[in-house]
Amino acid sequence: MRKLKKTSVGILGATGMVGQNYVRLLENHPWFEVRAVAASPQSAGKPYSEAVAGKWQMPCEVPKEVQGLVVEDASNVKKISEQCELVFSALEMDKQQIKDLESSYAAQDIPLFSNASAHRSTEDVPVIIPEVNPQHLEIIPEQQKHYGWKKGFIVVKPNCSLQSYITPVAAIQAAGFEVEQIIVTTLQASSGAGYPGVPSMDLVDNVIPFISGEEEKTELEPLKIFGKIQSGKFVPALKPLISAHCNRVPVVDGHMACTSLQFAGKKPGIEEILQAWKDFKPEPQRLKLPFAPERAVIYKTEENRPQPRKDRDLDKAMAVTVGRLRPCRVFDYRFVGLSHNTVRGAAGGGILNAELAKAKGYF
Amino acid sequence: MRKLKKTSVGILGATGMVGQNYVRLLENHPWFEVRAVAASPQSAGKPYSEAVAGKWQMPCEVPKEVQGLVVEDASNVKKISEQCELVFSALEMDKQQIKDLESSYAAQDIPLFSNASAHRSTEDVPVIIPEVNPQHLEIIPEQQKHYGWKKGFIVVKPNCSLQSYITPVAAIQAAGFEVEQIIVTTLQASSGAGYPGVPSMDLVDNVIPFISGEEEKTELEPLKIFGKIQSGKFVPALKPLISAHCNRVPVVDGHMACTSLQFAGKKPGIEEILQAWKDFKPEPQRLKLPFAPERAVIYKTEENRPQPRKDRDLDKAMAVTVGRLRPCRVFDYRFVGLSHNTVRGAAGGGILNAELAKAKGYF
Amino acid sequence: MRKLKKTSVGILGATGMVGQNYVRLLENHPWFEVRAVAASPQSAGKPYSEAVAGKWQMPCEVPKEVQGLVVEDASNVKKISEQCELVFSALEMDKQQIKDLESSYAAQDIPLFSNASAHRSTEDVPVIIPEVNPQHLEIIPEQQKHYGWKKGFIVVKPNCSLQSYITPVAAIQAAGFEVEQIIVTTLQASSGAGYPGVPSMDLVDNVIPFISGEEEKTELEPLKIFGKIQSGKFVPALKPLISAHCNRVPVVDGHMACTSLQFAGKKPGIEEILQAWKDFKPEPQRLKLPFAPERAVIYKTEENRPQPRKDRDLDKAMAVTVGRLRPCRVFDYRFVGLSHNTVRGAAGGGILNAELAKAKGYF
Amino acid sequence: MRKLKKTSVGILGATGMVGQNYVRLLENHPWFEVRAVAASPQSAGKPYSEAVAGKWQMPCEVPKEVQGLVVEDASNVKKISEQCELVFSALEMDKQQIKDLESSYAAQDIPLFSNASAHRSTEDVPVIIPEVNPQHLEIIPEQQKHYGWKKGFIVVKPNCSLQSYITPVAAIQAAGFEVEQIIVTTLQASSGAGYPGVPSMDLVDNVIPFISGEEEKTELEPLKIFGKIQSGKFVPALKPLISAHCNRVPVVDGHMACTSLQFAGKKPGIEEILQAWKDFKPEPQRLKLPFAPERAVIYKTEENRPQPRKDRDLDKAMAVTVGRLRPCRVFDYRFVGLSHNTVRGAAGGGILNAELAKAKGYF
Repeated sequence: MRKLKKTSVGILGATGMVGQNYVRLLENHPWFEVRAVAASPQSAGKPYSEAVAGKWQMPCEVPKEVQGLVVEDASNVKKISEQCELVFSALEMDKQQIKDLESSYAAQDIPLFSNASAHRSTEDVPVIIPEVNPQHLEIIPEQQKHYGWKKGFIVVKPNCSLQSYITPVAAIQAAGFEVEQIIVTTLQASSGAGYPGVPSMDLVDNVIPFISGEEEKTELEPLKIFGKIQSGKFVPALKPLISAHCNRVPVVDGHMACTSLQFAGKKPGIEEILQAWKDFKPEPQRLKLPFAPERAVIYKTEENRPQPRKDRDLDKAMAVTVGRLRPCRVFDYRFVGLSHNTVRGAAGGGILNAELAKAKGYF
Repeated sequence: MRKLKKTSVGILGATGMVGQNYVRLLENHPWFEVRAVAASPQSAGKPYSEAVAGKWQMPCEVPKEVQGLVVEDASNVKKISEQCELVFSALEMDKQQIKDLESSYAAQDIPLFSNASAHRSTEDVPVIIPEVNPQHLEIIPEQQKHYGWKKGFIVVKPNCSLQSYITPVAAIQAAGFEVEQIIVTTLQASSGAGYPGVPSMDLVDNVIPFISGEEEKTELEPLKIFGKIQSGKFVPALKPLISAHCNRVPVVDGHMACTSLQFAGKKPGIEEILQAWKDFKPEPQRLKLPFAPERAVIYKTEENRPQPRKDRDLDKAMAVTVGRLRPCRVFDYRFVGLSHNTVRGAAGGGILNAELAKAKGYF
Repeated sequence: MRKLKKTSVGILGATGMVGQNYVRLLENHPWFEVRAVAASPQSAGKPYSEAVAGKWQMPCEVPKEVQGLVVEDASNVKKISEQCELVFSALEMDKQQIKDLESSYAAQDIPLFSNASAHRSTEDVPVIIPEVNPQHLEIIPEQQKHYGWKKGFIVVKPNCSLQSYITPVAAIQAAGFEVEQIIVTTLQASSGAGYPGVPSMDLVDNVIPFISGEEEKTELEPLKIFGKIQSGKFVPALKPLISAHCNRVPVVDGHMACTSLQFAGKKPGIEEILQAWKDFKPEPQRLKLPFAPERAVIYKTEENRPQPRKDRDLDKAMAVTVGRLRPCRVFDYRFVGLSHNTVRGAAGGGILNAELAKAKGYF
Repeated sequence: MRKLKKTSVGILGATGMVGQNYVRLLENHPWFEVRAVAASPQSAGKPYSEAVAGKWQMPCEVPKEVQGLVVEDASNVKKISEQCELVFSALEMDKQQIKDLESSYAAQDIPLFSNASAHRSTEDVPVIIPEVNPQHLEIIPEQQKHYGWKKGFIVVKPNCSLQSYITPVAAIQAAGFEVEQIIVTTLQASSGAGYPGVPSMDLVDNVIPFISGEEEKTELEPLKIFGKIQSGKFVPALKPLISAHCNRVPVVDGHMACTSLQFAGKKPGIEEILQAWKDFKPEPQRLKLPFAPERAVIYKTEENRPQPRKDRDLDKAMAVTVGRLRPCRVFDYRFVGLSHNTVRGAAGGGILNAELAKAKGYF
């Protein structure tokens, strides 16, 4: 019977907004089934549906299989580890606490896929976008050896702000063109700040040209993603140099990125870039992973697309859409990228990471 | 008696949104008083308050002095020219028609200050931001000679999209630093598209990464503004090279610009730029023109400013506010600029142009 | 083979917003498949994907099966009638023209299910909400006889504004309590006005307390729905008397209704109303029609629900959710109702009407 | 010298949103000048401009006269009472604490005008809308006698939700028609909840049909306002009976009210109501108080007005605008009312109360 063969899964931080998205997205997942939900001590002991009463933000009802699961205290590592074979972390607490707690799960033989930023700079923890750097999973054995973990390991996903333009850039680089410099301005959705997040008084008829810590993440995380494994550690790439200006706009979901690119060496023609996006078929698409969008990059030909509300939900909200590829008067080219920040850029991205790791036999 | 000495003023396109702003802003103006309102033949013959019934968009009532003015057909150049000494043009019609009609007024001895884009590329019509290139008014005698106009002339203002960052750039250049390259992403308000303008279905929970023709204007008009008069014509500057990405966001008023700058030659320190903005006191401020903001550039020290709703109305909505000056990882510096698009960037800018020309004795 | 057994379907007005919703919602429908798309002469002759290029508003791509269908001129009744067994009308033209055109299809043996208001007041055309007055389909034979149609007939759905509270009211009446008076204030979504619809300048940071013709429809259509068939015509009910105040609010989808009820005769207790909603299992639910929501009325127990964005998509966006049932200081009770206006209140409602008619053997 | 004759004024809760509005609105007030600003102990000791740095929400800069005022701890009643002759209270703390603290100021000979709800139900504290029940100030001597206060007293203003329709109702009643029942649905602005207030995730593309405690206030406070003084206490009116449904909508400022009225006895014609509104000239208008709008009720004849963004700022944002007067199918008449919630409904209303009390010689 198929159902018995699904991997049992736990969600840490299950009552927060990213955690709720995990719960929602894993309903009817072909490979995974939620068996444990964990959160802070205040929620512990309550049935999940009660723990999220009044703060359930998803546009659906709590999935039936999860409604009755009793919320555990996320710090009960041992107990939770006995209930599941894999854990998604959407923890919201002090950075060092998250780091330690996530490591504890790995130490209990649990593969942990995290949305938190805590371990992103840990030198042997891979920051994965499955379409961009699937080969970075190869560090897992070295990571396990380093920490003395047997079957457990930690894989993280990058910040939601960079998902909208890094995959298109990676596709161009995969076609043999080297991007030297990027100046990008992001228009990011309200949901990116969680709940309660940004006050409505700051976002009705307004835009906020600042998101704390976001520009640094947007500028530096891609360098690790484009980096190499050397002696069991990641050595970040030196290029492309990225400058990011991050804005919060009155949009519910969907981060948009106005991107200007300067190439080093050979500069592609517009047709070559379009072809590169069309031909880009990285590992998640080749492996037909359940959460992988059919096309890794979708180019919209209309002159005014992509748009957050109209394009964010394409292909299970996992698509990265681009549009408006055109010459830049200062750099070589410009385009607009878009991806759904709470699905592709958060829970959906975490699930795809886990699918990739499973398909490649890491657990 | 003072009132008798005011310059009598006509407004072309007085029933449209920019025209309504002229009507609103000129109420109680110390130098000008509205004596003629002109629009399309459909509106002609009606009292102004009746002509705008149901389409008055201003957050106030129609000023009493204008309510009863009978709307003229804007093509009755002769009649309107007899009623006023100066004309503001907010015409919305075919570009060539606007060009011809505006010239007809100048030929009738009327100084005409236009918001329309029709004459912006005419080689001897100045595109003026009073804080940036007031000296361009010097072309007026040559313009009059060229077309055989005695007292009439045409002055235009630039597109609303560039007002939010060109004045700060000009202030830096005035301090002796040469800007070589600019990559700017604008977040522009709904009102910039007029009325009915952008459908709400495109702007509730959404952003549109495209505004027809806007990027070209934003990239090219500054070069004329920074240009020189040679042999009775404007020769555009070659620098700074500008790349603009223009977005429409769900904001009522206020265009914002995320700007990255690369300098040629000597690169200023951050303190030098801040000082340049603080010290910048161009002609409108020195002349204390009625519509000139007290400070030509206002720097906001809070990390998350300027914001459209909170800063657009500063100093009669004529202020240009900047914030977030910081190094750029790719270029030299970055900042955010903001100005009110329908006041500073439209009717208010036109009025300031007229004030400058009057103060300098051009009429 | 199953596919061959599906009913072939045509959509009139297929390029408009309601038409696009029909196209989207009928993808993979178990009973129906789209075989013809019709629109105005301007669109005719183009493949559907080309005809909607730049105006496709759905949050998905054009379904593959429809992309290549060549758009017909909707007035080619004969040709379209040969291509399909059933037609959905989302025509947007002059009311009399719609009326005549819809009748022409019926005359060609085509059962026609309309979203348009044209035939709502035709005395032998039923206005159906399947959960409320499925028995009104019984007029079909009389309608056919009256107009001399053999197999064709016309069924319409009511205005989208009343769907959010009429089903809950019907459920209470089905439990034996007679509602005498209703005062309702609706907060209606932008999409209800179609595209381009309401200008963003009227809806960003604003509310419009008026929708042309909407209050009359909201007040009168329910009386026909609650009415009876007598001598081949509908005789409207006299009660409940309804007063509706209709507002447009900055919400994309989802009409909300703040409703106060006064009962005639026996007044139920709060528990009786909740029970009535819980127990309400009308024909679409008993027949398990594909588009019928599992529960005809969903009561949300949270004190601040239903909310448009969070509840409109429940159960295929076909659910009617209610909340905040409480005593009214003037009438007997108050509650808030919500339904998705472009799905439940438009295309989805039309599809459910067709499913009901098919399940009951009318074609 | 005029300046010396102004009444010196203190603001309690000066750093909160209502307090900021007091600071903003009192700039250049002809009768009052701000001499003391008080807030919580955390803000105490800082210059005002520093205390509000990063949380100043007003669309202007901090007025120069207030920037340097050192914030006092609001509980230093004695010290603050020495610095000013009158106090505005915008305190945000525990209700009982507010009540006690406000009374302490009165005990120190300070007339106190409050925005807080704490004293609204105190039986000898008047809840004043100057256009509606100015005569309620007559309780002041009795209040002073009761509590043993010499010159101090307490006057409060009602909740912001009811200002938009109670003045129009009072105008009708002043013309001799008795309103028996009111069913009202309010659409209230985000700013009504203060800052941070409502999360943007709850208000972008959404409406919340619930505001905690608001319906009770909206239903009951008018009865005190329409009540009488008997034996030194207020006896609430029994009529009109009010049922209020309060919604939060994505609007920055401006509360709107869709109102249905049932008359007792003589029912006016539509023209009589319009005339009543036109003729309504209560005390603040007769006395030409500085903050009184010229007309107490403004009727908008356009079919789709009043609208929050377009009408809230009329006449110093102190106007109450109404529109859409029409018959109601259930009650007698319906109309839409609007007022600016943070000006007319909060700080501006408080200032008008103080002006009234001063003009009538209560201090």
